[in-house]
Amino acid sequence: MKATVLTGGVGGAKFVLGLERCGLTQSITAIVNTGDDFRHLGLAVSPDIDTLLYTLAGKSNVAQGWGREGETWNFLEAMQSLGGPDWFRLGDGDLALHVLRSERLARGETLSAIVADFAKAWGIATHILPMSNDPVATFVDTDEGTLEFQRYFVGRQCAPQVSAIRFEGAETARAAPGVVDAILSADAVFVAPSNPFLSVDPLLAVAEIAQALEETKAPVIAISPIVGGTAVKGPTAKIMGELGIAVDNEAIADHYSDFVDALLIDTSDAPPSALPSLATSTMMRTLEDKIRVAREAIALVHSLKR
Amino acid sequence: MKATVLTGGVGGAKFVLGLERCGLTQSITAIVNTGDDFRHLGLAVSPDIDTLLYTLAGKSNVAQGWGREGETWNFLEAMQSLGGPDWFRLGDGDLALHVLRSERLARGETLSAIVADFAKAWGIATHILPMSNDPVATFVDTDEGTLEFQRYFVGRQCAPQVSAIRFEGAETARAAPGVVDAILSADAVFVAPSNPFLSVDPLLAVAEIAQALEETKAPVIAISPIVGGTAVKGPTAKIMGELGIAVDNEAIADHYSDFVDALLIDTSDAPPSALPSLATSTMMRTLEDKIRVAREAIALVHSLKR
Repeated sequence: MKATVLTGGVGGAKFVLGLERCGLTQSITAIVNTGDDFRHLGLAVSPDIDTLLYTLAGKSNVAQGWGREGETWNFLEAMQSLGGPDWFRLGDGDLALHVLRSERLARGETLSAIVADFAKAWGIATHILPMSNDPVATFVDTDEGTLEFQRYFVGRQCAPQVSAIRFEGAETARAAPGVVDAILSADAVFVAPSNPFLSVDPLLAVAEIAQALEETKAPVIAISPIVGGTAVKGPTAKIMGELGIAVDNEAIADHYSDFVDALLIDTSDAPPSALPSLATSTMMRTLEDKIRVAREAIALVHSLKR
Repeated sequence: MKATVLTGGVGGAKFVLGLERCGLTQSITAIVNTGDDFRHLGLAVSPDIDTLLYTLAGKSNVAQGWGREGETWNFLEAMQSLGGPDWFRLGDGDLALHVLRSERLARGETLSAIVADFAKAWGIATHILPMSNDPVATFVDTDEGTLEFQRYFVGRQCAPQVSAIRFEGAETARAAPGVVDAILSADAVFVAPSNPFLSVDPLLAVAEIAQALEETKAPVIAISPIVGGTAVKGPTAKIMGELGIAVDNEAIADHYSDFVDALLIDTSDAPPSALPSLATSTMMRTLEDKIRVAREAIALVHSLKR
């Protein structure tokens, strides 16, 4: 099976790792949200792409949920001693990705090419594709005004109340090379259990990606981010509440109704009425969990093909 | 006494620290070579300025001779794992200076202003002035061709044979704000025991600095980099040999003859014939050594004034 995954950061990276290890795919392409990307201290930071890189290279800090295992913080300490900005925590090892990416971008290379080289250097089999090489920036309209995504997510720890989410640049952004083909030529397309509003919607805001999802003949399966009536991690449930959306699989199915064929849900939640679904335990704590979720997602694909 | 020092990196930083601690100066200005400055991985690196910052802030790695005490190398390891360049070793803590400097330069701030803020943040009393805010780049003509300074110094460890040294940009570079005044208004000007050819000559290649040195009414004292017929550190003696210059105080006095009034030399070496001199042990291993050398240099100033 040739699998293509639309994904944000942590939850999506876990699902892709499960797919890699489940032994049921011949090739995997991860199309990654870049709406969270931003410049910090002049450096180009791509949080979701880097989470994929760290997770699939076995370098991620599983306990912390982001960044590198065994990270040190001498850079940040020195930055603090100089009175520089420290609200976004860049680890010492993590800096290598940002510095090298920034230098290569400045030389005119594309994010696609740079990420492909990083993945190759770290022996990652999955094709990690940024959704676009054009800048797309997520902005969050809140009761504290409009915030850049990282100012909302990291700087304000998602505390402000969200009224709208926008993806600047998305209307003119082209899909990165390989993205459309990976959707059209896949045997199955998966929407990872990432935040639908912050992590998946930026991908859907790129017209070529939305169009490819409608055109693809492959079944499209979304793994619901809802577990037990809330979200596993991050502000998904909080944002759904603030946007006046019920935190259930009905809402997730409705959100993805244009292109998703079935939903993989947690056993603790009610299934959606409008879409086929399969229930399993979708919490992905251990590698075994991740492999099970990947296998169940593939089982759902096969059930649709019958 | 208001003291002004023309200086390169390690040896000069030691001398300035001795001046700071000797209790005989009211204010000190260090005018620092920027000919070694270069871009690495897109980051603006200023080796001599940073050596002053680390030394005067008590953060320098004394055993290693450069960089920060307690430095870690996770960035470099991660860079190596990505196949990025690792010939110039950037430490984790050290990166803070380069990243913050690069970002502020990109915003249009001057190196002078940035360095002044760094020094203030670290509680450094000495005024650390880059010789110029305009780019000056040292190039070394060698038997392996022309090399950028850091490619010669770090990349090739000074192995190639030097035939000439050039300072690109020096002919049009303006002295940084405060530099000319620091020379003209000083009670004494010192030329640190830095490499005359690589570290001091770039300063002299800036016309406004050379002119101020000729015009100043202050005595100008050079501390000879020669100890026991060779150089304490670095390629000074090797380069003098390659340029056909004897490694002695006669040659140092001759090199600085346009503007230097007297030479502080080591007791193990013969004095120059053309200039007044004073001998002490000029090796600066301990803080006591540094203070003694600073005091002897000031004693030499006073002997000239009599």
